[in-house]
Amino acid sequence: MTEERTARMGLAAANDAGDLGLVKLVRDEGARGVWDYLRSGRGRTSIARRAAGVDLDALRRRTDEIGARFLIPGDEQWPAGVGDLTWSDPVGGVGGEPLGLWVSGPVDLSTLGKAVAVIGSRASTAYGEHVAADWGVGLAEKGHVVVSGGAYGIDACAHRGAIAAGGVTVAVMAGGLATFYPPGNSALIEKVKHAGGVVSEYPPDHPPSRQRFLVRNRLIAALSQATVIVEGAIRSGAQNTVNWALSLGRVVMAAPGPVTSAMSVTPHRLIRSGEAILVSSAKEILDVVEPVDSTIPDYPRSPSTLIDSLTDNQKKVYEALPARRSICVDELSVLTGESALSLLVSLTNLVQAHLIEESPPGMWKLTAHSSRQ
Amino acid sequence: MTEERTARMGLAAANDAGDLGLVKLVRDEGARGVWDYLRSGRGRTSIARRAAGVDLDALRRRTDEIGARFLIPGDEQWPAGVGDLTWSDPVGGVGGEPLGLWVSGPVDLSTLGKAVAVIGSRASTAYGEHVAADWGVGLAEKGHVVVSGGAYGIDACAHRGAIAAGGVTVAVMAGGLATFYPPGNSALIEKVKHAGGVVSEYPPDHPPSRQRFLVRNRLIAALSQATVIVEGAIRSGAQNTVNWALSLGRVVMAAPGPVTSAMSVTPHRLIRSGEAILVSSAKEILDVVEPVDSTIPDYPRSPSTLIDSLTDNQKKVYEALPARRSICVDELSVLTGESALSLLVSLTNLVQAHLIEESPPGMWKLTAHSSRQ
Repeated sequence: MTEERTARMGLAAANDAGDLGLVKLVRDEGARGVWDYLRSGRGRTSIARRAAGVDLDALRRRTDEIGARFLIPGDEQWPAGVGDLTWSDPVGGVGGEPLGLWVSGPVDLSTLGKAVAVIGSRASTAYGEHVAADWGVGLAEKGHVVVSGGAYGIDACAHRGAIAAGGVTVAVMAGGLATFYPPGNSALIEKVKHAGGVVSEYPPDHPPSRQRFLVRNRLIAALSQATVIVEGAIRSGAQNTVNWALSLGRVVMAAPGPVTSAMSVTPHRLIRSGEAILVSSAKEILDVVEPVDSTIPDYPRSPSTLIDSLTDNQKKVYEALPARRSICVDELSVLTGESALSLLVSLTNLVQAHLIEESPPGMWKLTAHSSRQ
Repeated sequence: MTEERTARMGLAAANDAGDLGLVKLVRDEGARGVWDYLRSGRGRTSIARRAAGVDLDALRRRTDEIGARFLIPGDEQWPAGVGDLTWSDPVGGVGGEPLGLWVSGPVDLSTLGKAVAVIGSRASTAYGEHVAADWGVGLAEKGHVVVSGGAYGIDACAHRGAIAAGGVTVAVMAGGLATFYPPGNSALIEKVKHAGGVVSEYPPDHPPSRQRFLVRNRLIAALSQATVIVEGAIRSGAQNTVNWALSLGRVVMAAPGPVTSAMSVTPHRLIRSGEAILVSSAKEILDVVEPVDSTIPDYPRSPSTLIDSLTDNQKKVYEALPARRSICVDELSVLTGESALSLLVSLTNLVQAHLIEESPPGMWKLTAHSSRQ
């Protein structure tokens, strides 16, 4: 193990609270310099106290023992997305690029460019669970890695959908990878590990904490090209992940739900404020992350709507127009039995509706995009 | 009855299909001139044929008989909103300002400035019906007239909600006011008449038609300051009303619903495309139509979110800051037991989070909007 990797493993173990200050120091002074300083006994900060307690040999053994690997920036499998975790994050003082990542499972994190995070409330409804599983299936079927947090509720259903579709899914943990949290999901997270991977920036035996969940959320956002929130109550942890995604310039999407559901309050607020795009199917998520052209595709619209809105007179005139040539008012009058005045009124309105055009002057014909063409 | 009123009543009776051409002629030539021409026997258009069949005396008697009145532009009770139905409507050739309106019920249409249209599918779900009734109540309680079309489903529930709240509601009919359509709603529409009014631009005994529904929709949009769509399938009549509202520059709002509901496809499309604002309660509709300030109010956001995102170190420093004075790093070091380096990292991040400020230089204090102030 290189000295850089060793130093980063020690620093990652000491960086309990995802302190941006430590990440900045490492950027400025180098991992080895900071690690050596912290281990010199001269520092009196809480990080220095924690660094003094790190047993690097034991940590390396434990990492091997649980079948994990420790990645650092520059490694082939290092995920490019976390490089966007710059120093100017609006959420005060947490995060920055991780010092290193513990990973288990076959996934190559450098291939997460098309990953989509599907997140939401632990106290989900049956509706939200159905949606999360359905979208997990739909995204995985199209080759998108489904990233989530392994939590109860929406997270679990998103992972399950991806696994059911035979796709790749990644769970980002708020604690170390020796024991999966929450305990009730450990069998599921074990399956996630085999169907993709589990990721943590904490050593194998670190338990999760409130602070570590917040620090973890930024990794979910940074590892994914887009984040989809399925359900969230008025005060939702998912909001924190969404904030990270927005500050990273990632697209945020949200599932609408019944206005009577407390679990749809956060998605509705995000849509209403313009922070999230409303999506109502996996297909619509794919339209956003795999755009065919540069605009968000519109819903199908019936071509007959415009025709339906014509008056009876206008319909009669429109249907009397020949398919491939221009026609004058006199001929139209014979065909329709209408007066020239009446015909001119209808023709003018049909031109305004872009269904016909006057060409040459005094002659009328169907436009190129008329549905009769 | 003045000659202008007589001519307009005759023209309204002859204007079967809401032909914009006739409205334009009346604007240019005056109602009397057009009426006299149509009755001269010289015209050969379908409108002239219909005008020849109008029995004005019988029409006036019938209007009185059913307890209706016939309003024309310039009348004290004429609704200002329909004046926005200009000649350049994007929907080809239908409409313009109505030539006159038959009205029954106590409502004064000139007071509809604050009216809100609540519309949606006839094939509504129990969810949509609940939402429409609830919002009908909420709008009526705050003095907003609830405008709708008297149809089954969403329309009926919106009217019912307004009536239940003791408010004013108006049904705009696609046929004349002698017989209410649909028959199954005639008792409800009778109640709407007493709780506000019923309105039609067709003579008392004209039956509704497909065309007349489309022509009617523009009146719902024009009479209201805003239109709220509660439910609509992929191809929905409510879309037509929304198009009118948008082309009139009226605000359009839409209720989200389950993504699994076919009846929420049109509201979701409108929200996704930015044509409609997502609203999830009557309160949110009121926020849009009665803005306290010029921006759409945001949802409540917990003030403690930012604090939650602080690291433990930052929280410790934040909580150690005195309430009303500045403090230097040395004093903070004594209070917290942290080194100057650690404190400076935390202080820098707290400044970035706008929770504290450096003032005077080298001294730190809480900002004015810190929740600890």
